[in-house]
Amino acid sequence: MFDKFHEECGVFGIFGHPEAANMTYLGLYALQHRGQEGCGISAADGSKIRTHVGLGLVADVFKDNAIFKRLPGNNAIGHVRYSTAGGNDIKNCQPIAVDYGRGSIAVAHNGNLVNAQEVRNQLEQSGSIFSTTADTEVIIHLLARAQSDSLPDRIAEALNTVRGAYSLVFLTETRLVAVRDPQGFRPLVLGKVDGAFVLASETCALDLIEAEFVREVEPGEMIVIDKEGLHTFRPFEKRPPAFCIFEFVYFARPDSTIFGRQVYAMRKAFGQQLAREHGVEADIVIPIPDSGVPAAIGYAEESGLSFQMGLIRNHYVGRTFIEPQQSIRHFGVKIKLNAIREVLEGKRVVVVDDSVVRGTTSRKIIKMIRNAGAKEIHMRVSSPPTSYPCFYGINTPTRNELISSTHTLDEICRYITADTLGYLSIEGMMKVVGITDGSSGPFCDACFTGKYPVKFPRLKSDDQLGLF
Amino acid sequence: MFDKFHEECGVFGIFGHPEAANMTYLGLYALQHRGQEGCGISAADGSKIRTHVGLGLVADVFKDNAIFKRLPGNNAIGHVRYSTAGGNDIKNCQPIAVDYGRGSIAVAHNGNLVNAQEVRNQLEQSGSIFSTTADTEVIIHLLARAQSDSLPDRIAEALNTVRGAYSLVFLTETRLVAVRDPQGFRPLVLGKVDGAFVLASETCALDLIEAEFVREVEPGEMIVIDKEGLHTFRPFEKRPPAFCIFEFVYFARPDSTIFGRQVYAMRKAFGQQLAREHGVEADIVIPIPDSGVPAAIGYAEESGLSFQMGLIRNHYVGRTFIEPQQSIRHFGVKIKLNAIREVLEGKRVVVVDDSVVRGTTSRKIIKMIRNAGAKEIHMRVSSPPTSYPCFYGINTPTRNELISSTHTLDEICRYITADTLGYLSIEGMMKVVGITDGSSGPFCDACFTGKYPVKFPRLKSDDQLGLF
Amino acid sequence: MFDKFHEECGVFGIFGHPEAANMTYLGLYALQHRGQEGCGISAADGSKIRTHVGLGLVADVFKDNAIFKRLPGNNAIGHVRYSTAGGNDIKNCQPIAVDYGRGSIAVAHNGNLVNAQEVRNQLEQSGSIFSTTADTEVIIHLLARAQSDSLPDRIAEALNTVRGAYSLVFLTETRLVAVRDPQGFRPLVLGKVDGAFVLASETCALDLIEAEFVREVEPGEMIVIDKEGLHTFRPFEKRPPAFCIFEFVYFARPDSTIFGRQVYAMRKAFGQQLAREHGVEADIVIPIPDSGVPAAIGYAEESGLSFQMGLIRNHYVGRTFIEPQQSIRHFGVKIKLNAIREVLEGKRVVVVDDSVVRGTTSRKIIKMIRNAGAKEIHMRVSSPPTSYPCFYGINTPTRNELISSTHTLDEICRYITADTLGYLSIEGMMKVVGITDGSSGPFCDACFTGKYPVKFPRLKSDDQLGLF
Amino acid sequence: MFDKFHEECGVFGIFGHPEAANMTYLGLYALQHRGQEGCGISAADGSKIRTHVGLGLVADVFKDNAIFKRLPGNNAIGHVRYSTAGGNDIKNCQPIAVDYGRGSIAVAHNGNLVNAQEVRNQLEQSGSIFSTTADTEVIIHLLARAQSDSLPDRIAEALNTVRGAYSLVFLTETRLVAVRDPQGFRPLVLGKVDGAFVLASETCALDLIEAEFVREVEPGEMIVIDKEGLHTFRPFEKRPPAFCIFEFVYFARPDSTIFGRQVYAMRKAFGQQLAREHGVEADIVIPIPDSGVPAAIGYAEESGLSFQMGLIRNHYVGRTFIEPQQSIRHFGVKIKLNAIREVLEGKRVVVVDDSVVRGTTSRKIIKMIRNAGAKEIHMRVSSPPTSYPCFYGINTPTRNELISSTHTLDEICRYITADTLGYLSIEGMMKVVGITDGSSGPFCDACFTGKYPVKFPRLKSDDQLGLF
Repeated sequence: MFDKFHEECGVFGIFGHPEAANMTYLGLYALQHRGQEGCGISAADGSKIRTHVGLGLVADVFKDNAIFKRLPGNNAIGHVRYSTAGGNDIKNCQPIAVDYGRGSIAVAHNGNLVNAQEVRNQLEQSGSIFSTTADTEVIIHLLARAQSDSLPDRIAEALNTVRGAYSLVFLTETRLVAVRDPQGFRPLVLGKVDGAFVLASETCALDLIEAEFVREVEPGEMIVIDKEGLHTFRPFEKRPPAFCIFEFVYFARPDSTIFGRQVYAMRKAFGQQLAREHGVEADIVIPIPDSGVPAAIGYAEESGLSFQMGLIRNHYVGRTFIEPQQSIRHFGVKIKLNAIREVLEGKRVVVVDDSVVRGTTSRKIIKMIRNAGAKEIHMRVSSPPTSYPCFYGINTPTRNELISSTHTLDEICRYITADTLGYLSIEGMMKVVGITDGSSGPFCDACFTGKYPVKFPRLKSDDQLGLF
Repeated sequence: MFDKFHEECGVFGIFGHPEAANMTYLGLYALQHRGQEGCGISAADGSKIRTHVGLGLVADVFKDNAIFKRLPGNNAIGHVRYSTAGGNDIKNCQPIAVDYGRGSIAVAHNGNLVNAQEVRNQLEQSGSIFSTTADTEVIIHLLARAQSDSLPDRIAEALNTVRGAYSLVFLTETRLVAVRDPQGFRPLVLGKVDGAFVLASETCALDLIEAEFVREVEPGEMIVIDKEGLHTFRPFEKRPPAFCIFEFVYFARPDSTIFGRQVYAMRKAFGQQLAREHGVEADIVIPIPDSGVPAAIGYAEESGLSFQMGLIRNHYVGRTFIEPQQSIRHFGVKIKLNAIREVLEGKRVVVVDDSVVRGTTSRKIIKMIRNAGAKEIHMRVSSPPTSYPCFYGINTPTRNELISSTHTLDEICRYITADTLGYLSIEGMMKVVGITDGSSGPFCDACFTGKYPVKFPRLKSDDQLGLF
Repeated sequence: MFDKFHEECGVFGIFGHPEAANMTYLGLYALQHRGQEGCGISAADGSKIRTHVGLGLVADVFKDNAIFKRLPGNNAIGHVRYSTAGGNDIKNCQPIAVDYGRGSIAVAHNGNLVNAQEVRNQLEQSGSIFSTTADTEVIIHLLARAQSDSLPDRIAEALNTVRGAYSLVFLTETRLVAVRDPQGFRPLVLGKVDGAFVLASETCALDLIEAEFVREVEPGEMIVIDKEGLHTFRPFEKRPPAFCIFEFVYFARPDSTIFGRQVYAMRKAFGQQLAREHGVEADIVIPIPDSGVPAAIGYAEESGLSFQMGLIRNHYVGRTFIEPQQSIRHFGVKIKLNAIREVLEGKRVVVVDDSVVRGTTSRKIIKMIRNAGAKEIHMRVSSPPTSYPCFYGINTPTRNELISSTHTLDEICRYITADTLGYLSIEGMMKVVGITDGSSGPFCDACFTGKYPVKFPRLKSDDQLGLF
Repeated sequence: MFDKFHEECGVFGIFGHPEAANMTYLGLYALQHRGQEGCGISAADGSKIRTHVGLGLVADVFKDNAIFKRLPGNNAIGHVRYSTAGGNDIKNCQPIAVDYGRGSIAVAHNGNLVNAQEVRNQLEQSGSIFSTTADTEVIIHLLARAQSDSLPDRIAEALNTVRGAYSLVFLTETRLVAVRDPQGFRPLVLGKVDGAFVLASETCALDLIEAEFVREVEPGEMIVIDKEGLHTFRPFEKRPPAFCIFEFVYFARPDSTIFGRQVYAMRKAFGQQLAREHGVEADIVIPIPDSGVPAAIGYAEESGLSFQMGLIRNHYVGRTFIEPQQSIRHFGVKIKLNAIREVLEGKRVVVVDDSVVRGTTSRKIIKMIRNAGAKEIHMRVSSPPTSYPCFYGINTPTRNELISSTHTLDEICRYITADTLGYLSIEGMMKVVGITDGSSGPFCDACFTGKYPVKFPRLKSDDQLGLF
């Protein structure tokens, strides 16, 4: 409903816990913000893999205790997904579990392969069939065709064929494998609880199950966990890291620590830096809740302005919403947010949001604040303009739907009807994450800069990007 | 899941709108925080009343457009309810719609009658049957037996038999009636949109449908709306007002204005006053989200301390939650909240919550904050100790479950493992709402003071209260 | 889907069985043919009555074992219902369970009160409220207002106010009561299993639970069962019996014994008598399955013609059925029945059905048989023409929708496109059930003759009947 | 619930109809008896294939009109399935629709491949992955790997790798293909309606949609239908036909015509022949409904005994059924059947069933008839003893669960507690279907004789069969 980039997935894995499926369920609960369309768990008991997937939230898909009885075993993986194409088909839910020449395997994937279509075409030409539209299915096929003797080698063989972003967990009858792509686009962390190893997209999943954080799975690392313990491999050619900086801006939960940095702290610091770059004479600072809160706190702190909750969010909003038929009003944003006149009336207001994608929601919110009596509205965005689509696991509109790509700052400011508009600069953002040499450091900032760290077949010109 | 008092209901009504049922649905959306167990809408088309009720959230019970086609008519009322007795029986959902000697009528009720059982016994003795356990059914029976000629007189006759708290909306084939009990315990406001009259428990429901706020329905007032317009009556003996002050503390949505005051502003002022009363040397102020946020902002502002979000709330939590069977851990609070080590570590932390009921949740949260490295934890509660149960529409535990009723401040502080503990004083709370003469002014503060503005049969001693 | 009269209800009760609710569920299973729209069970454990009702078949409403855990107690009653007014509202499901001045009571009803509206009006005038449109609610109100000291007297007092058809089972905290109206329109039988008393609309419910048939509850009898045993009362003025003869024609299950006669045997004998009255030269006799089978067997036996299954019924048909939008064909009957060309081609066919209501289905079926190659089609109906609506618990169309009421035999024969048409005579039907004195004996045959054994307010002329 | 062999599937296809999906739904309705666990439809609109599958009956899976809007196109196929392994997993529902090197394809399968596991192993060894346990997935893989230029050649290439029973319908973006294995185990018929071609497992599906029967798809024939019309191919080496004779005994609907014979007529003739082989002095002949009815009619006709319905079937039985916990009784059969004492008491009864698998149900039914007072019970089975499992698409128990395989006629008679027992002879059965030369003619009678027309890897000895 909000005008945001959308995360596509979260993954979780656990090895050596008597209630592996139930612990995975808890882990997915904590990762629910990474995908709300569908979820699933595969559990292995040493000889067989069993899977349950469904459309909807973790709490709904796994609301029946009986499901856990059908998922016995000490090892499990899980997945939450955001459906890219509106097509909320149960077929696309993960983990994907299959039989192949070496037994059974299940996989859960966060990320996106840039050459998936190309590889899929080749696989189809040589006789493979595809039941889903997910690029993850490509990985499974490659794995099934790999000729190497050992599982780690086969996984490496398969993954060396694909390019792009992947944080993966695999489950076999007896092993749990985690792999992060050579550039480490998506986060993946390792933890431990009660002697069991845990893997998760973010540390907030470790926190919920009271697992101790051990370290991040490193870019290009493969971790294989079996009865003997944890084995680490480096099967890929080394490449410069490209951590998705947007995880700090919006995706990750503020209580997580990923890429060696604490998310809430980064967001607050973005807000502080934003205040330094785009200070303005005003009375109050308000966030667009919930995602804009940490940056607004930072902005207020740095600017010395008063932090207030001028917009209240309704958390009971459902998936569908039935508008009056004959109404000339649109309830889209109002159903989620309401402005408090007493806080805003007669005030010069700084509104802090984490990002602006199409600008449509910003326009409606600013109208709402204006109607509540604000005298001036200064829109501040705690990230640079998002001008380029992402090909590494984030669901973004095409280029010409991105308002920053097609309009100037002034035009955007007029469109959203703000008095002034300020975005955080790339340099300011990099400074916050500790990069001061003018480079992107270990980060991927392609959505802001268009500098894509992994090339892909279809990327020949900006025009094509727009059509993609 | 949290240790809070629970609101029992919210009501809504609209007269003279071509999509009355759909507008009511929107109104209930905005009032969802007042009750999540069940909801319903009755609509009247001039000759017939049709009703749809269901268990669950508004978004789920009314997710199908076809339901609205079965609820035609320009007038409608709606209800959201919190189920008191765990018994989530569809029979208890409101509006209650019946046929009686004068036609059809539907009613939705927010509040609680203190003499319901007594009247029910009398009614049963004289031949009435009861299908539900709701005190609202008593009102319907009294109304059906009333002998007066006009509808307003009959409603008055019925309500003069009962005592307690009631904000009611009635719907007949052709009229909408709103009544607030003589002391006005529960809020009820009047608005207007597109020429249609609107009634709602809180102004946030007016805001969502872009209705203009006209005024509050006054304590002891009956408003009858028909084709000729709005008629007002004063059928009850005048009594001193007794507005539920707990609506400001926790129940009402912060963006609402009720009892002539803006809720967010009151909460923030409670926090400011709390800082004045219970200042402490500390590094940061953090709220227990979401309800503690405004008071924490106020506390931080007044104390000059830094406001931070040290606890993150997971908003995807479902109604049921399956814990591992063999676990020695309890996930109850962790599933909803997580602490950020980077914010808390080594810090002297002021934690602001709006109220403490049993103390169990506070204890768990403080443990969580302590585990995240906080050096000192100063618990601050933006309301006085809740030592007495409510009999006017709030679901409270019995007296001996209220920690403030059975323990001293020191004992509570030790139990919740805080370093210091401070509650807002009654005087401080009253000062914020503008009462400085040592009285409760127009407010009911019985849950803090035990001064019950309406006597009830069972209240003979504190002991009995405890058993109630 | 078929053109039949519809039964409105079946009832069941059991007293003194450790799994009373589960046994009631089994009983309702066997009575499912008497009503498929909704069902319910009330169980009493000595101090409390608990109820579960739902829309749909018994197997669906009670598919979860947990429901039975919520229905403890040794005594229970149950109900299946056919929804009269299309309005399949859960509110109308029975048993109806209420609290009143003497405690709690639940009731399940098969039948129809002819003065329900009149009594309801009086009750409403004196202050009663009605939540449903069922006439059963009237009985509950009367009972609650009855002044007598004992339960049997109160029930008698209540029922002496109403007129019409009722086979009732009541459940209190500690007692089970069965009552049959003075004329005994609807069946009600008493049985015993494992020391527990059982009541049921038909003996097939006794058979399923392996209960022994004891006797029928007699017309005008009230049976009260408590810990001391079974007590019988005769609280009504004696009236001539009026057993619904249509139970033999179509409603009751063929394996039941009611009104002292075995249903299958009656149906077969109707077929034999029909053959004597309307013999015809032909090759084969086929039934319209399933209800026409026994009569067709009888017809074939008596006539010496070959009995064949020329029409096959699909038993997997669901409640809803989606027809192609642009089709000029109608699949209504075809979805349920198919004709076998090899059986019918070139044959002179006697088609036996139990009754014809509007004639629309007969017309379609005869067309289907003709298309399958039948040379001649002789329609034979094993009951007299149904020319009058029923007011005693059967759902019938208005008089002018009954083809026998508005058309001559010849016209009907032409309309349904049969070569010849013969109905069983009233005299023939009576002879089969043992009445040869020209009277109706102990039976109600009002739907065939218009001789209504109980007068009702609205019945002033045939015209009015048509409008009813 | 009954002790029967179980059919595994039914298929349907239509080409060139504006409401192809809706017509397929009607066709599946008529084929529902071939599988009740799950169903599905794939529709093609010239460029894309869309699929909807679900667990349950056709009426439930396709109860929402909106589903048909999501299945546009003039061509469609459908499938009903009986779940073999208790595992009612939605993944196993058909049609299976995939993308592969040549585009998209969907397939629906009735039958069973005897070398599926062997081929699957080979495919897995060369890199294929399997998402289901269905042998149909093997066909799809082979098809995707086939190298021939044309679709018919590729399908032939794929199918020449497998052995066993298959009646298949394929749907591509623009074509409909039907294939029947070289021996034609399972039926498959061709029809035409409104210019559209129709394919179905049985003619009863043609009847429902008023399609004209054209001819059977011949054993070993491939029919390709595209815009140019119908093309026929013979891609397989010719083999002797092996029509499943059990389709006549039990599976097919009695109103269907398959293998050139009318099913009802065959069943009745089996009964007549049975009477000639196993005549007995008795009073009445009763069927075990519904499947035993035609044979019982035949038996009665030939023997001159009276045909009666002594057992009544309850058609409202659900999928699940909750038995009392403490009961010593078993309700399994009683919930479905009831005996009529008045028909059976004191009688010498011939009971006709179509087949006996384990004998457990027969034993219960005979006990029920005996309890109803029958003097003598003569069990007559209208097929020979079923002593061998089927490997061609029927779900049968292992050999040592088949009572005829492990017990003599006398032992079986004693076990089921009949007075006498007679099975139709193989010779008698063959005579009815027109084979009098001592061979099986064009039929497969392996379940009776153990003469398997297609060898399979695991079949080395009877012992192994038992273990299979």
